Amino acid sequence: MSQLAQEIISAIRKVVPYEDTFVPLHEPSFQGNEWKYVKETIDSTFVSSVGKYVDRFEKDLAEFTGVKRAVAVVNGTAALHVALTLVGVKKNDEVFIPSLTFIATANAVSYCQATPHFVDSEESTLGVDPYKLKSYLKEIAIVKNDECFNKQTGRRIKAIIPMHTFGHPVDMDQLIEVCQQYHIDLIEDAAESLGSYYKGQHTGSFGKISAMSFNGNKIMTTGGGGAILTNDERLADMAKHITTTAKVPHKWEYVHDQVGFNYRMPNINAALGCAQLEKVPDFLNKKRSLAHKYSEVFKGVPGVTFKQETDYSQSNYWLNALVLDEANEGIRDEILNLSNSSNLMTRPVWMLMNHLPMFRNCPSMDISCAESLEKRIINIPSSSELGDK
Amino acid sequence: MSQLAQEIISAIRKVVPYEDTFVPLHEPSFQGNEWKYVKETIDSTFVSSVGKYVDRFEKDLAEFTGVKRAVAVVNGTAALHVALTLVGVKKNDEVFIPSLTFIATANAVSYCQATPHFVDSEESTLGVDPYKLKSYLKEIAIVKNDECFNKQTGRRIKAIIPMHTFGHPVDMDQLIEVCQQYHIDLIEDAAESLGSYYKGQHTGSFGKISAMSFNGNKIMTTGGGGAILTNDERLADMAKHITTTAKVPHKWEYVHDQVGFNYRMPNINAALGCAQLEKVPDFLNKKRSLAHKYSEVFKGVPGVTFKQETDYSQSNYWLNALVLDEANEGIRDEILNLSNSSNLMTRPVWMLMNHLPMFRNCPSMDISCAESLEKRIINIPSSSELGDK
Repeated sequence: MSQLAQEIISAIRKVVPYEDTFVPLHEPSFQGNEWKYVKETIDSTFVSSVGKYVDRFEKDLAEFTGVKRAVAVVNGTAALHVALTLVGVKKNDEVFIPSLTFIATANAVSYCQATPHFVDSEESTLGVDPYKLKSYLKEIAIVKNDECFNKQTGRRIKAIIPMHTFGHPVDMDQLIEVCQQYHIDLIEDAAESLGSYYKGQHTGSFGKISAMSFNGNKIMTTGGGGAILTNDERLADMAKHITTTAKVPHKWEYVHDQVGFNYRMPNINAALGCAQLEKVPDFLNKKRSLAHKYSEVFKGVPGVTFKQETDYSQSNYWLNALVLDEANEGIRDEILNLSNSSNLMTRPVWMLMNHLPMFRNCPSMDISCAESLEKRIINIPSSSELGDK
Repeated sequence: MSQLAQEIISAIRKVVPYEDTFVPLHEPSFQGNEWKYVKETIDSTFVSSVGKYVDRFEKDLAEFTGVKRAVAVVNGTAALHVALTLVGVKKNDEVFIPSLTFIATANAVSYCQATPHFVDSEESTLGVDPYKLKSYLKEIAIVKNDECFNKQTGRRIKAIIPMHTFGHPVDMDQLIEVCQQYHIDLIEDAAESLGSYYKGQHTGSFGKISAMSFNGNKIMTTGGGGAILTNDERLADMAKHITTTAKVPHKWEYVHDQVGFNYRMPNINAALGCAQLEKVPDFLNKKRSLAHKYSEVFKGVPGVTFKQETDYSQSNYWLNALVLDEANEGIRDEILNLSNSSNLMTRPVWMLMNHLPMFRNCPSMDISCAESLEKRIINIPSSSELGDK
């Protein structure tokens, strides 16, 4: 067994010294008003599609993230699907997404009959590399009538979906500049970054429209859930409309004016969300404390870096991550085996999207950085309560 | 004001004599283990995609409906979408659906890039008229290599989705015969018919695959939720797989082998479902009692019929319905206005699918019965607890 693998486990153990208990990667914490609010939905019988918690959750979330409007939906995948639909992504369009992301981003593009076009990530943010993207666009793209086209495929490149990996914000200023220059719509995948800020501004508030997730493993959870964020009132109204079957308000008639979706978040899930959102500042403090402890212990372990926020951003440290030096990528699986067999849950990053069979033939820029990161990233236990102990 | 409108309101009032309280069309009842089970998910922190209540709900539901397998999903629309995908409905296929149905059926067909092809309903069941369908198929369809084609459009007719309207079972024997003769896959839309039986067999167990809904207005609710039912183990495994992002089991790798969906039901919603399902036999008794009371009082009101189950079926009486005689269709809105303005919630049936702008140009048989029913159906208060008072 390699010495480094053992040193890494020992370092994690210094921060998480609970050897007799299984330590999950991320578990939610319900110590606030969760039960109170959920019980209220059951007592009032308003557990489903209508109810005050949905309205409140949307309002509270918009306030927390500093956007004009939030629309609660059934999960982050649904939020991405709606975002793509609303910016006008159509069949045969291409949509830039990082190769290093969760499957939801690529699936959502597929639901629109569009094609994912993979872009590389950068080591410092683990997200889209705007400089490399700019060079790539110079080579392959042409702008005609304020629309961007891929010269090689002839298809329109309609949008890009940067994802703030593990809560670390993408370099937004640079990316926004590229998007503006090439007339590419910006959809932020902020599924992992509630509580993360880029230059003081909340992630998810830069894009034309953005997606959030409140799955059980996220910094806060609604059981299953997600949200669409936007500063565009018209887009928000459209988002609400098409996520609620595109039903036109009427005292009793059932008129729907387009093919819509049944993507609304139930009130019982929104009740959980309202209580969780109240605790997010507390979760953020604890996660910051946990990340600080990890960063301290890993200073003494050469050959691996604990991923820290850049100097221009504030990460929510949703999932803490180690990045092995290139020379050590060979021991990733050894570390995963060793930790998981000793009550410490760890995992590698997602398999790159263009390594999956259904996306293998999609267009892609050189993704050498993502390919390297894929072999070197290890997520380590990150539950907010671990920062409190 | 017409005398009949007043007589109808008076008749409803005999069954629902609570003039000072608003009587909704259908409200859920939580008098069992709802709190206990939901609290357990919060206490255990397993509120999301993994948890014992999802497994239990699937097992309990399969047992209750008499099918081999049930797969819990996020809502009935998702269940229909997955059902269509799994029977192999492809782009440009046609799918028969009743014109008289909720929007979810037509939307699900659209998600597959297929075209709804509208069929008529019959007065006795409010569902698909198998005899009329058979005559229509004789005229427009041709079977080639065990597949059915529309001679007029050249497109394949892959499947039919009968819907058991308000809980009243479609005439399944006749429909199954037509489907077999023409090689059309049968997908049951049992969204409204949990607890409804056709010749002693539960609705949703006849189709190759079926969809259920547990929205807040249904006989039982999970907040938002649905299920896929099937007797085909292979289809059930595929349903579970593609509703959980098509992730291939692995100790830590994130491999997905096809474009999948994020359609799983969260554990907190399944917990509510387990408690509700325990009460369904009780709900069915109460709803039967309520329907009996309505049928008695409406015997004395000529010009309108209280919709009762056929002699070969048992309805769950999810939504009680009045059907006006054709001569009285002109007073439908008067009845709706009068009741809704006097604390009694009523509503008409859904607008026919081919009267909606996005489906106006879809193929359709003569739907004169559905067109007539659209003008004559009125749903009246149906909460199970009304049957207990």
